[in-house]
Amino acid sequence: MTKQRLGPPSGSRDFLPDEALFRQRVLETVRAAFVRHGFAPIETPAFERLETLSGKYGDEGEKLIFKILKRGDKAASGEADLALRYDLTVPTMRMYAHRRNDLPRVVKRYQIGPVWRADRPGRGRFREFHQCDVDIIGSASPLADVEVLLALAAAIDDLGLGRFTIRLNSRRVIAGLMEAYGVPPDRQAEVSVVLDKADKIGHGGVAEALSGIGLPNMAAARLVADLTAQDWAAALRRRIAESGQGREGLAEVEAIAGYLRPHLTGGTIRRDPILARGLDYYTGPIFEFFADGGAGSIAGGGRYDDLAGMFLKDSVPVCGGSLGIERIMLLLSARDVTPTPAGADVYVTVWDEHARADGLRLLTELRAAGLSAEIDLDGGRIGKQMRGADERGCRFAVVQGPDEKAAGQVAIKDMTSGAQETVPESDATAAIKRLGTGPD
Amino acid sequence: MTKQRLGPPSGSRDFLPDEALFRQRVLETVRAAFVRHGFAPIETPAFERLETLSGKYGDEGEKLIFKILKRGDKAASGEADLALRYDLTVPTMRMYAHRRNDLPRVVKRYQIGPVWRADRPGRGRFREFHQCDVDIIGSASPLADVEVLLALAAAIDDLGLGRFTIRLNSRRVIAGLMEAYGVPPDRQAEVSVVLDKADKIGHGGVAEALSGIGLPNMAAARLVADLTAQDWAAALRRRIAESGQGREGLAEVEAIAGYLRPHLTGGTIRRDPILARGLDYYTGPIFEFFADGGAGSIAGGGRYDDLAGMFLKDSVPVCGGSLGIERIMLLLSARDVTPTPAGADVYVTVWDEHARADGLRLLTELRAAGLSAEIDLDGGRIGKQMRGADERGCRFAVVQGPDEKAAGQVAIKDMTSGAQETVPESDATAAIKRLGTGPD
Repeated sequence: MTKQRLGPPSGSRDFLPDEALFRQRVLETVRAAFVRHGFAPIETPAFERLETLSGKYGDEGEKLIFKILKRGDKAASGEADLALRYDLTVPTMRMYAHRRNDLPRVVKRYQIGPVWRADRPGRGRFREFHQCDVDIIGSASPLADVEVLLALAAAIDDLGLGRFTIRLNSRRVIAGLMEAYGVPPDRQAEVSVVLDKADKIGHGGVAEALSGIGLPNMAAARLVADLTAQDWAAALRRRIAESGQGREGLAEVEAIAGYLRPHLTGGTIRRDPILARGLDYYTGPIFEFFADGGAGSIAGGGRYDDLAGMFLKDSVPVCGGSLGIERIMLLLSARDVTPTPAGADVYVTVWDEHARADGLRLLTELRAAGLSAEIDLDGGRIGKQMRGADERGCRFAVVQGPDEKAAGQVAIKDMTSGAQETVPESDATAAIKRLGTGPD
Repeated sequence: MTKQRLGPPSGSRDFLPDEALFRQRVLETVRAAFVRHGFAPIETPAFERLETLSGKYGDEGEKLIFKILKRGDKAASGEADLALRYDLTVPTMRMYAHRRNDLPRVVKRYQIGPVWRADRPGRGRFREFHQCDVDIIGSASPLADVEVLLALAAAIDDLGLGRFTIRLNSRRVIAGLMEAYGVPPDRQAEVSVVLDKADKIGHGGVAEALSGIGLPNMAAARLVADLTAQDWAAALRRRIAESGQGREGLAEVEAIAGYLRPHLTGGTIRRDPILARGLDYYTGPIFEFFADGGAGSIAGGGRYDDLAGMFLKDSVPVCGGSLGIERIMLLLSARDVTPTPAGADVYVTVWDEHARADGLRLLTELRAAGLSAEIDLDGGRIGKQMRGADERGCRFAVVQGPDEKAAGQVAIKDMTSGAQETVPESDATAAIKRLGTGPD
């Protein structure tokens, strides 16, 4: 046998029971929140035609797509025809364009699943990671944006992440800003990138960066002055309102904030006229959730009314958002939240080979009562079996030695406290349920 | 825009809400059965190093592996370094070899997830499909085989598939058969393939096929005679018992059947001395579940004590099984089981734009009560909104016109029966809960 590398491939992970269970529970909590908000599941394949994904993620994104070699005789060509999905949004748009006639006029869909990017792996950055998306296809109403925001906020609340702030803006506010401050069209992308760094480098930093990129004097000077003013947001908004687009954008942000505010229990809204968000495809309202206390962005999204146009002739209004679920799971597991261990409720020990049938009978009874239960497989001394129950994280162990058997009794041991009680055989399952067992 | 293909890639599928929900529920039922039987989740990545999968699935399997092109500068080489997992077993063995020291002595793991094979797509055969596996690593006890069988049987019971038959055998019985009938070692693989076709071509067919492959006269004649005898199984078992290996195999089958029988509520066991199962790697007990009524194999598995040796120096006893979940889902959806539609419990209509805030308030209340609810996004006439509620599969719709608003009431319409009742605003959520809402 040649020496093999046994770890998972770079940037991917194996999840042992405790961690797998933790992830399952987090994702299930998110799913339940999405369902409560009227989103229904839609699933797309792990891979797409290469042509479906190509040209959708910019030059940098393009390089990170995992491409799949052709099969059979064509494998030797070294060419790829399929690719692992890079996000859940583009496949959903492809699916929507294909199945539109089988879907209601307004589609509220969620999708929770892995995506793959050949990024350089690092702390909290993986090549296989989960995304949790909600999208509403087919409505231009601000209530659609509100519903996306409420679903994400509810998921964050239900996960117990603590308070958060939603930074809310619109791409039309950004367009208005460019117009009002007279930023030339060919410099707008650059300025937008600088503005987006505000949460990292502060407004002072943004002002400094803007001075450095050689804007027309007037534009730069005004923008820098307003950004560093005492009430910078108000100063910017005043100026942005000079532009028609800007006014519309501000009104759109106002409407969403107004509908949302009374129903946002876990967070506050910050209308932020310089939030730009990197992705090119946003066209209207955009937002980002930040966990209070400086843990960074935990969700984001916005409206992208033109994306469906990649696959359809007509434009379809779409808005959506995504939880940064891998970061959220890191935040949750860094807290003192002790995950419930993956062990079964009950471990049935087996005194000797003749006691196996009795053990199986109890096992069947426990399972029929909805408990998770396992039986010692390999026998040996009860002390060793007890260590097995402990090592496996089981909550209770049941022992029936010859004396107990003769008396029609079993001993139940609480593996956490070490407490032990003896009950009639026929009462074993009920007794364990009385003593209390956890979820799953 | 160039004309794009919009369907999912060949052999893969998009699942719209009703189907996605059906699949979720099936997989959740399976998961719950596995957990009740003391199996814990372990997850491995979607892709593995190509070297991890190469040489594990025979020549035919090898061709069906989806290979992933190297990234960055190396992409131009046309070489692959990763591959999509072809099953869940080999990755689990790789993971076990890597993480053995972090795991209990006996590992009972389940894994439910997609695998990928570049098979020619056909009815019920996909290139992306789910597997649902349970495995017990680290125990050679027959109780381990029994636990695997019980977990699979429970999942099948819980899914409501109806009665089934478990064909049970051991590779050692097959080895004993070869020995007892004097099949030369170089012909055993061939004979094993023929025997395995018994459920398709019958014993007569097997006898005929055996006559045709030119075995030494004595071996073929005896085997054919016994296979076509009245009580063929007894005849074969008598002869197999002449071999030491055969006797051990028969005893092992007997032990498992004995432990299993009292706890098998939904099926019966058929000890079948010619069940061979295709995969090379089985070493001991093997089994296959068949749905009664001729729907074919719905689960299978066995003991493969040497497979870990691909990644470890020592041999580790392992047994496991897998549900044919895609076939099971086809069987279930072919029945008259009407899946619960994916629609929300409640659709809140919005009389006009001024009523949006009221609608959002009710929406928040419904969701806080654990109901799934959505709000009409785009407004317009109530009739049109009602058609929206219907199209979306919602169970109830709530309407509050100016008169109801003035009277502090809302109307609740049952979208299935058409029945409508008017209740005080403050009672709306409770009234809908009383009227009854489904799961999720």
